[in-house]
Amino acid sequence: MTGTLETPGALTVIPVTGLGEIHRGGDLARHIARHAALADGDVVVVTQKIVSKAEGRVVALDPEDPNERERLIGSEAARVLRRRGALLVTQTKHGFVCANSGVDFSNVERGFAALLPEDPDRSARRIRDGLRAAVGVEVAVVVSDTFGRTWRRGVVNVAIGCAGVGAILDLRGTTDSFGRELQATEICVADELASAAELVMGKAARIPVAVVRGVDRGWLRTGSIAAEVVRPPAEDLFR
Amino acid sequence: MTGTLETPGALTVIPVTGLGEIHRGGDLARHIARHAALADGDVVVVTQKIVSKAEGRVVALDPEDPNERERLIGSEAARVLRRRGALLVTQTKHGFVCANSGVDFSNVERGFAALLPEDPDRSARRIRDGLRAAVGVEVAVVVSDTFGRTWRRGVVNVAIGCAGVGAILDLRGTTDSFGRELQATEICVADELASAAELVMGKAARIPVAVVRGVDRGWLRTGSIAAEVVRPPAEDLFR
Repeated sequence: MTGTLETPGALTVIPVTGLGEIHRGGDLARHIARHAALADGDVVVVTQKIVSKAEGRVVALDPEDPNERERLIGSEAARVLRRRGALLVTQTKHGFVCANSGVDFSNVERGFAALLPEDPDRSARRIRDGLRAAVGVEVAVVVSDTFGRTWRRGVVNVAIGCAGVGAILDLRGTTDSFGRELQATEICVADELASAAELVMGKAARIPVAVVRGVDRGWLRTGSIAAEVVRPPAEDLFR
Repeated sequence: MTGTLETPGALTVIPVTGLGEIHRGGDLARHIARHAALADGDVVVVTQKIVSKAEGRVVALDPEDPNERERLIGSEAARVLRRRGALLVTQTKHGFVCANSGVDFSNVERGFAALLPEDPDRSARRIRDGLRAAVGVEVAVVVSDTFGRTWRRGVVNVAIGCAGVGAILDLRGTTDSFGRELQATEICVADELASAAELVMGKAARIPVAVVRGVDRGWLRTGSIAAEVVRPPAEDLFR
């Protein structure tokens, strides 16, 4: 999207509480709508885990069998990039590079593992469409997951899918306060929205959804993590 | 820090406007205090650029001489990791891995470049101490810069220094909602705070400071990006 340089106002990041356990086939949008007072222009950030559960992307797995674990991670990978002990850094079929193909063994019942959604942009679009149908609001949706990074310790929440908000804010061609053309001006606002949301989620506090209210209206357009954020291997200097 | 699992409330992210140009030797804390109504527990996110300017980390540079540019980037680097065209990915003396050693040619006067602060954690402590002295508030401070990432397009705002807030929230040893010990539970909240702040800053809109209000009080402790976030090369799988 073309960047707007107007001074934006304050943002509010609101946790959505009381969602409880999410079950396969559940209408996630309707469920979120029951627990959040949404307004037009809100960005609804939904953690991958509940999206995967609602979409049935949960598989049985013997937690005591390391081979089964590794087979599952491999089946979700397009390529294994690095390995250290039990940690595999893989490139998923979506093109994400993350630990263990995004397969997650926490916050699911023992004996099961959650896989990433097949197409997280599509998941985001469905939730957005569902929220419009349920309560008539025009919101954006970001599906998020916590990823590790090269060179920096700790994980941060990033966007793996989005709808109704551009993933990248492109300020190229605009000038700085000295009239000089800006460098490094493609800002991944989708990842920043996911990170902002994580600050109110709490890892184990069953807060899988947060609302970011007050974002620049100019950012609200068709968006896609797959098309805008996933960097093709040929462009990448570290793989 | 040990993680708190209490449900946190909403956060507010507030842009600080009207700061104008920052000059070498200026009392940055006092200047910020004049433009922001700060409260105890606030996290004040300050972009590297104005910290560098106040600290005199701005050097003259012939913008037409590519050799001079590269010499400067090299002098700020401990190691060059990759090179593509005019882009150098370097490890700085602080241990950050970023484009062009963090040397920045935008939002400074033509013929000059801004370097990263010598010790961004110290910069954050000074601003925090200065704000306490100026207006008697106990706030946390994060010094931020926008960094590119491997595998994902676009830059995001990250923390290069902090004071009064832990960089990493460590939830290891706590259990998920199924009573299972959590994986991937070191969350880099300092980076997430920087990213949240960026959403209200606008790249060229002269908003170099934002306040994040409402963070979990349990996060407020002595913190350090150098000690907590910078990953030693031996730990790193991609360098």
